[in-house]
Amino acid sequence: MKSGERELLEAFAAGEARALARAISWVENARPGFERLLSAVHDRVGRAHRIGITGPPGAGKSTLIHALAGAVRRNGERVGVVAVDPTSPFTGGALLGDRIRMTGAAGDDGVFIRSMASRGSLGGLATTTREVADLMDAFGFERVVVETVGVGQSELEIAEAADTTVVVLTPESGDSVQAMKAGLMEIADIFVVNKADRPEASRAAAELKTILRIREGRAFERIPAHHGIDLTELARRRASKAAAAKDAVDIGAAGPAGWEIPVLLTTAQEGKGVAELLNALDGHQRWLKETSELTRRRRQRLLERVRAVVERGLRTRVWDEMSGEAILEAARPELESGSRTPYDVANEILNSLRTDGARGR
Amino acid sequence: MKSGERELLEAFAAGEARALARAISWVENARPGFERLLSAVHDRVGRAHRIGITGPPGAGKSTLIHALAGAVRRNGERVGVVAVDPTSPFTGGALLGDRIRMTGAAGDDGVFIRSMASRGSLGGLATTTREVADLMDAFGFERVVVETVGVGQSELEIAEAADTTVVVLTPESGDSVQAMKAGLMEIADIFVVNKADRPEASRAAAELKTILRIREGRAFERIPAHHGIDLTELARRRASKAAAAKDAVDIGAAGPAGWEIPVLLTTAQEGKGVAELLNALDGHQRWLKETSELTRRRRQRLLERVRAVVERGLRTRVWDEMSGEAILEAARPELESGSRTPYDVANEILNSLRTDGARGR
Repeated sequence: MKSGERELLEAFAAGEARALARAISWVENARPGFERLLSAVHDRVGRAHRIGITGPPGAGKSTLIHALAGAVRRNGERVGVVAVDPTSPFTGGALLGDRIRMTGAAGDDGVFIRSMASRGSLGGLATTTREVADLMDAFGFERVVVETVGVGQSELEIAEAADTTVVVLTPESGDSVQAMKAGLMEIADIFVVNKADRPEASRAAAELKTILRIREGRAFERIPAHHGIDLTELARRRASKAAAAKDAVDIGAAGPAGWEIPVLLTTAQEGKGVAELLNALDGHQRWLKETSELTRRRRQRLLERVRAVVERGLRTRVWDEMSGEAILEAARPELESGSRTPYDVANEILNSLRTDGARGR
Repeated sequence: MKSGERELLEAFAAGEARALARAISWVENARPGFERLLSAVHDRVGRAHRIGITGPPGAGKSTLIHALAGAVRRNGERVGVVAVDPTSPFTGGALLGDRIRMTGAAGDDGVFIRSMASRGSLGGLATTTREVADLMDAFGFERVVVETVGVGQSELEIAEAADTTVVVLTPESGDSVQAMKAGLMEIADIFVVNKADRPEASRAAAELKTILRIREGRAFERIPAHHGIDLTELARRRASKAAAAKDAVDIGAAGPAGWEIPVLLTTAQEGKGVAELLNALDGHQRWLKETSELTRRRRQRLLERVRAVVERGLRTRVWDEMSGEAILEAARPELESGSRTPYDVANEILNSLRTDGARGR
């Protein structure tokens, strides 16, 4: 370990916010030694409650997170926020003047907000996001919130990595049907209908509850169409939810083994319903601990992390350390003339790795 | 090449639709030999006009594609459709009875629709989708349409792979602002405001045109926040658009070097505006050919393809052929107890590959 890294780790352990910011940049930019850094703080990872907040653009996720952060702070807890939503005002994505009002949370060192949007995918977006959440966790934040837009492969993957996933919708007609079709029903632990001051809000909440009831009853019929998501894992989770719901029906109420997905109404802009959301989050965290679900989810994620880090390492090796890029450059004229196919060139690169390996690189 | 593959290739070359369907399944499931198959048809790839249709869930993309397919057929051309949108009715994602009416196109062997939604990411969703589009292209379809939901990393990547990208929005207030924030302005060659029978439609189109004008003028100021997308490439594209727009202003009209993004109004359900869309698509295709843009885009994609195939090959090698999975399984107890970190285990796997390589595997 180099001295710069040691200093950073000491400042990080001492709770200096600047050290957290530096560590995050280190990881985001995949600078040399970033995996050593993550490895060094690994034993402090796992204490935070990881909350995924997801939902369509315009649902008011950022405003809700802002209000939630305030409520968490009033409880004396600290909160880290990672925003991955390219449409989020947190990310500076706003162009026409609809920046979020960050009063209340801004200037408070118990709230740390970091946007992932302007980065490339040096290490893979989903993995890097999880690693940034790890850093916030290891730093000592009691809650780590990851905000994503709830459509798309990596976004669903990111949501899946939370202990508790909150799906935020608006009362707009059709929002819940779209959410269902996008696979959000499978990842939601808590539903929030935001902008509940609109007249359609209670109807929307009722619609959601109906859809949830229908789905619980037919959980085995159809596995949703997730790309890049472990379908077995999803099916298992779903089955456990269905079994829990069935138990609940049998015994007349949700038993300790079951988690009944609540549908909450919030008006984030006025802070309404936020205390209830925090309550539900705490309830879900308790449920995760009482059942073996938290341990099981986290063990699953350890395996996923190893796989992701290996694949990132392979990419680095072939394009940065070994001859991949040089072979590709040399093959360019033949590729462009059509005398060689991309598969042909890819094979040459893959074979060169075997030779490089044999040379003891 | 095995005899099954040879037979398939012969039937494929003879234009048998069943052979196309089999070839697609082969590629989607990454069955042994699938890359040989793609390599074998590679010299017939590149004749089709590749059209990406993207936009938020509920914008009516599927209905529009359906209508467009009808118009293309009436011109005597054949069309292949790949749907990647998990919320698309094409993918069977509909649950509550809002299945699309597929009359007109169904039963016509000049229209071939394939959904990618129910697959995992065996070969990476973006790459597999492009390869399925390649097969449709090589099979002889004059147009290949790829439908994606326009939010999320892989979805933007897929849209980027088209010759012409159409962004479909609804007239709903805020749709265009959301689209802009999600980065859709950068990938759109044509804008469509669908559901134009609604009263707000012309206002929405005017809003879009304003945003486009504003953005053209400030194209260098800000690179959008795309994950996993080549920012240099985006910046270049954007700069060429801006330069073209500037030329257009200088000479009073769009010169042959510039492409002015049209904003069209359609009512897909009634087929209104679809002829105009087809017209704009043809215009863009001509523009791509007249400038060197088509060649440039396609050369860029050849390089991307090599990279993607190499990375897929590395994943297969480490998890299927070599000892990666065994090492991970053996390390599980230590991972779970916390005595080893994921980075530690990942390193062991990466090092084992060097050793395996040295043994001449």
